[in-house]
Amino acid sequence: MLIVMNADATAEQIQRVVDIIDSLGFKPHPMPGATRTAIGITGNQGPIEAGDFESLPGVVEVIRVTKPFKLVSREIKHEDTVIRLGDAEIGGDELAVIAGPCAVESFESCMQIAELVAASGAKFFRGGAFKPRTSPYTFQGLGEEALIILAEVRNRYGLRIVTEVLDHTHVEMAGPYVDVLQVGARNMQNFSLLRCVGQTRKPVLLKRGMSATLEELLLAAEYIMAEGNYNVILCERGVRTFADHTRNTLDLSIIPAVQRLSHLPIIADPSHGTGKRDKVIPMARAAVAAGADGIIVEVHTCPERALSDGPQALLPEMYTQLILEIRAIHSVIRTHGIQ
Amino acid sequence: MLIVMNADATAEQIQRVVDIIDSLGFKPHPMPGATRTAIGITGNQGPIEAGDFESLPGVVEVIRVTKPFKLVSREIKHEDTVIRLGDAEIGGDELAVIAGPCAVESFESCMQIAELVAASGAKFFRGGAFKPRTSPYTFQGLGEEALIILAEVRNRYGLRIVTEVLDHTHVEMAGPYVDVLQVGARNMQNFSLLRCVGQTRKPVLLKRGMSATLEELLLAAEYIMAEGNYNVILCERGVRTFADHTRNTLDLSIIPAVQRLSHLPIIADPSHGTGKRDKVIPMARAAVAAGADGIIVEVHTCPERALSDGPQALLPEMYTQLILEIRAIHSVIRTHGIQ
Amino acid sequence: MLIVMNADATAEQIQRVVDIIDSLGFKPHPMPGATRTAIGITGNQGPIEAGDFESLPGVVEVIRVTKPFKLVSREIKHEDTVIRLGDAEIGGDELAVIAGPCAVESFESCMQIAELVAASGAKFFRGGAFKPRTSPYTFQGLGEEALIILAEVRNRYGLRIVTEVLDHTHVEMAGPYVDVLQVGARNMQNFSLLRCVGQTRKPVLLKRGMSATLEELLLAAEYIMAEGNYNVILCERGVRTFADHTRNTLDLSIIPAVQRLSHLPIIADPSHGTGKRDKVIPMARAAVAAGADGIIVEVHTCPERALSDGPQALLPEMYTQLILEIRAIHSVIRTHGIQ
Amino acid sequence: MLIVMNADATAEQIQRVVDIIDSLGFKPHPMPGATRTAIGITGNQGPIEAGDFESLPGVVEVIRVTKPFKLVSREIKHEDTVIRLGDAEIGGDELAVIAGPCAVESFESCMQIAELVAASGAKFFRGGAFKPRTSPYTFQGLGEEALIILAEVRNRYGLRIVTEVLDHTHVEMAGPYVDVLQVGARNMQNFSLLRCVGQTRKPVLLKRGMSATLEELLLAAEYIMAEGNYNVILCERGVRTFADHTRNTLDLSIIPAVQRLSHLPIIADPSHGTGKRDKVIPMARAAVAAGADGIIVEVHTCPERALSDGPQALLPEMYTQLILEIRAIHSVIRTHGIQ
Repeated sequence: MLIVMNADATAEQIQRVVDIIDSLGFKPHPMPGATRTAIGITGNQGPIEAGDFESLPGVVEVIRVTKPFKLVSREIKHEDTVIRLGDAEIGGDELAVIAGPCAVESFESCMQIAELVAASGAKFFRGGAFKPRTSPYTFQGLGEEALIILAEVRNRYGLRIVTEVLDHTHVEMAGPYVDVLQVGARNMQNFSLLRCVGQTRKPVLLKRGMSATLEELLLAAEYIMAEGNYNVILCERGVRTFADHTRNTLDLSIIPAVQRLSHLPIIADPSHGTGKRDKVIPMARAAVAAGADGIIVEVHTCPERALSDGPQALLPEMYTQLILEIRAIHSVIRTHGIQ
Repeated sequence: MLIVMNADATAEQIQRVVDIIDSLGFKPHPMPGATRTAIGITGNQGPIEAGDFESLPGVVEVIRVTKPFKLVSREIKHEDTVIRLGDAEIGGDELAVIAGPCAVESFESCMQIAELVAASGAKFFRGGAFKPRTSPYTFQGLGEEALIILAEVRNRYGLRIVTEVLDHTHVEMAGPYVDVLQVGARNMQNFSLLRCVGQTRKPVLLKRGMSATLEELLLAAEYIMAEGNYNVILCERGVRTFADHTRNTLDLSIIPAVQRLSHLPIIADPSHGTGKRDKVIPMARAAVAAGADGIIVEVHTCPERALSDGPQALLPEMYTQLILEIRAIHSVIRTHGIQ
Repeated sequence: MLIVMNADATAEQIQRVVDIIDSLGFKPHPMPGATRTAIGITGNQGPIEAGDFESLPGVVEVIRVTKPFKLVSREIKHEDTVIRLGDAEIGGDELAVIAGPCAVESFESCMQIAELVAASGAKFFRGGAFKPRTSPYTFQGLGEEALIILAEVRNRYGLRIVTEVLDHTHVEMAGPYVDVLQVGARNMQNFSLLRCVGQTRKPVLLKRGMSATLEELLLAAEYIMAEGNYNVILCERGVRTFADHTRNTLDLSIIPAVQRLSHLPIIADPSHGTGKRDKVIPMARAAVAAGADGIIVEVHTCPERALSDGPQALLPEMYTQLILEIRAIHSVIRTHGIQ
Repeated sequence: MLIVMNADATAEQIQRVVDIIDSLGFKPHPMPGATRTAIGITGNQGPIEAGDFESLPGVVEVIRVTKPFKLVSREIKHEDTVIRLGDAEIGGDELAVIAGPCAVESFESCMQIAELVAASGAKFFRGGAFKPRTSPYTFQGLGEEALIILAEVRNRYGLRIVTEVLDHTHVEMAGPYVDVLQVGARNMQNFSLLRCVGQTRKPVLLKRGMSATLEELLLAAEYIMAEGNYNVILCERGVRTFADHTRNTLDLSIIPAVQRLSHLPIIADPSHGTGKRDKVIPMARAAVAAGADGIIVEVHTCPERALSDGPQALLPEMYTQLILEIRAIHSVIRTHGIQ
């Protein structure tokens, strides 16, 4: 259910609607738009009586939301969501670039890579402190030591930090150090973790699961938003298919599909999406051409020594070339007023 | 690395090997077999010096384990693992049947179903207290209220209880009430949860993820075993493919594939594996014929009122028919001395 | 459209309906059933006027067929289709076994294998004369030489011959030598070939394509039947998925799914369905337990020398064991009156 | 096996090598390159003695080809293959655009669409005369009538004609009318058809099968080339996966993967690759950004009346916009000297 307020509804009128929703035991989600505020309602089992709201002062319209996802939907919020962190943004006019090593491995290597990333004009730095690894016996990340290094990257280079969290202890621990919490593909339907990051107010980068449908991806985002955290960035990172020329099959068609149904930004991960260094640049270009709001990419000054995912990390000169090429494509996209 | 002890090695000799492994900062996993004990070693980064162990009293052999999974492997433990809970077992001669509603919905419906299940000779009762649901707005389970009902099922009918846990709070909460902790398909690579159930000593029913390979399934089990909990039951519940005549594609070939590589028992879930009531019986028969150690199946006395997964729950008379048929097939399998 | 005739409709009345359908430019498909004859109509673009037929003598009812497949459908023919070749049958009470080498390689090896197959009580012999090979540079079959050998197998051992055809020249050439024409998975939607085998009156073994849905499989059979050849046997032989522990993923759930919608018999191919010798027996058992009308299986007296698909061919003693086990399971299925 | 000739080898020397290969019962494939000629050898079962060739005049080197595909491989021909048809080309500097209706439906509609296509600067016109349809009861194409219309499109608008053939009769019939023969996804492993088009000298547009791996696609092309027709254009048109937001999943990563292994041009089909009109433009942009040599796209002046695939055909104004956007992206790609 969505309550659409009048363009000149007062703050008091909005608050009154919120209070009434609260008092009925439901959860109100006020969504200020460019011209008017809409208030989503969740927490109801079954339909709510529209009449209860239609006659309240300041209310224009009460709309039934027909999709299984609500807060995620363009039906509830027409304008694109732009995630802003100081001068950095995801979902706006600028192409967002998130770059860095797969895992944080040492202070020195991190600073080297961060310098490269900052010099390229990218505004976000990625680096794993807690690594979800298929085997319990492989490198699992440096934990808090990595977070401290990441915080220093922010300090020195002004980059916003993106890191993956695997459980509630990571969410707590990472909070003070990082800017964006990442939920990985393997945890896309770890509903406890989704709720946990939903209870923070940090932006969440939510990766599509390896066999997730569009609806499942949107509903995973809905779990986060239903807790009141509306800063969700979706990410296509490849799905699992029979094809064996890449590690995963990057399904770029989900980009326009998300943009049609949802106001949330969506980026692509050509590193995990292909798993092979020589496919990263063409697929990054393709993602931007398909309309992605940004890319997240692995870069390493010394990939052959990387403790995880070395074969997919770009070398510095490839990374610089990538930035050049995707910016050029993004400017074509902008020129033609796409989206 | 695997240390194989002499058939007549003493408890002291075994303990001494364990202590030395400990003192080197590794983790010892003693595995008593029918005729001798073997001791797995995990926690090492890179190879261990075999010579350190070969000369110890009671040691026959030191074997390098070549697979990425170790404790799960038949290389480490040749005999089939049998999970025993009183007179009930999974992995032994008897066909294990785990039956019950998808979710625990009410005391009455649960007792009705439990009576049917017990009468059929099944020894395990399934019922969800915490439901992983794709949408945040659908029924999420009764939580502790459900656990209390499940404990009462155990009391009244002597059935062992299997329930799914989604995070560490559930593991703690469910502990006193249930016999087997289930990790669902969506959490197969939720490594924090795997470690958490690995730290208990309750048997764990680990479902294959929707797009998990055989190796990933075995490595997920390895996460649990690496924490010292060796009571893991694997479960095939269907994978995601293009096929649309069933909700998932039940991949029964993984049963002989697991049995070749691992000593762990494996069962099948024809309810989630097909998602359609009329396919459950044929696929349960097929699973048993393929060599499954048991099946887990949804049954409901009133499926049309079930709060989740109604269309796949068997009606009571279908359930009774199913038990009859799979027992007959299992007895053929036994007669021919298969496995 | 389906015209259902009265139980005591005369041959003249049936013929009159057939003639009228003909005269309207459509194609009549008379389907004699146990108690009455029904006449399917194809070749119409759009609906036909039911009134034209309802008033004819001997007509009970005119039924609109709602599925995209018609002649294949149980709506048109309720009773199971049984394909009969002398004393051999597929789709009836007996479990059909089709066995033999992947490709016909030499007279001697073929006779050796045929002797084994005949001794096991199987009534069908398979052997490729024309092999569809992924590479143009691998063994493509012996062609007519193989057909002559196959005819000799029929002569000596009384086995019915099943062989694959790849195009119209093969259909013509194989005609005099073989009993059942096989259309392989790669040609399931080779509509020219489907029409060509549909114009013969030989039974056709139609294998499911590697990524074919249930509906596509049924519509491929419909192509054959629309030409007037109603002797179609469907075959599940594994589909392509991400899973890598078998060459293909044998999707046994399609067996009950086909049986619900169609009157055609369906068998399974555990050899191609798994691609690994040690998985063939368990999956053959599973297929029969799921309700398959038979199996087609590769057996070779010397698999390591086989010119194609050696790793999946059963050794003679394994084949004998397989026959024992699937017969035992089939007798359980029969005892319980399944299907 | 590949015989590399000296840069200044004479025509006679080349011919002598060809003759010797012939006389040994193998098939020679002379491939003139920018600086030297190489001669591929096929038709051998097992290795050939290199020494037989190394000492011949004009021979520089004899190279063993290690890939299962040979003529397709960059090992045999390093330079990109460019297919030229008068002033039109595929695989060269220019972005190739093949556009037109799914099926040829009438003279008028075809001319209308052709006018639009020609005006956009595209040089190829597509239109189905023989349609592979899942059901035998849906529109199957106008056959020769359509070919006559297509020939008139060529006449009037100077567009090169691309049309699909399903069997040898179509290949013969289409020959005089069209410029490029298309082998559709369903026939990618119809080896008889591949050989048949391989025996013509017309360029062949070979679409990737719905579940074909990279190697299978290249080997399908190898079938055509092994017959002596080296004018093959590959085409990605979407593969079958679990994803349901598009009809197929367009796997653009195969573009750089093909370009690494093969000298053949590769284009993309965003119409079949998505099956939804609003996804065609973004995915066409993405394909060009990924490095595709061209696109094939469905356009219709009246999609709601199209007899097949209407929902994916672009409206005229969308088509014009598409051309604008992909040209802009292609010029970025060219500027950066990519591939």
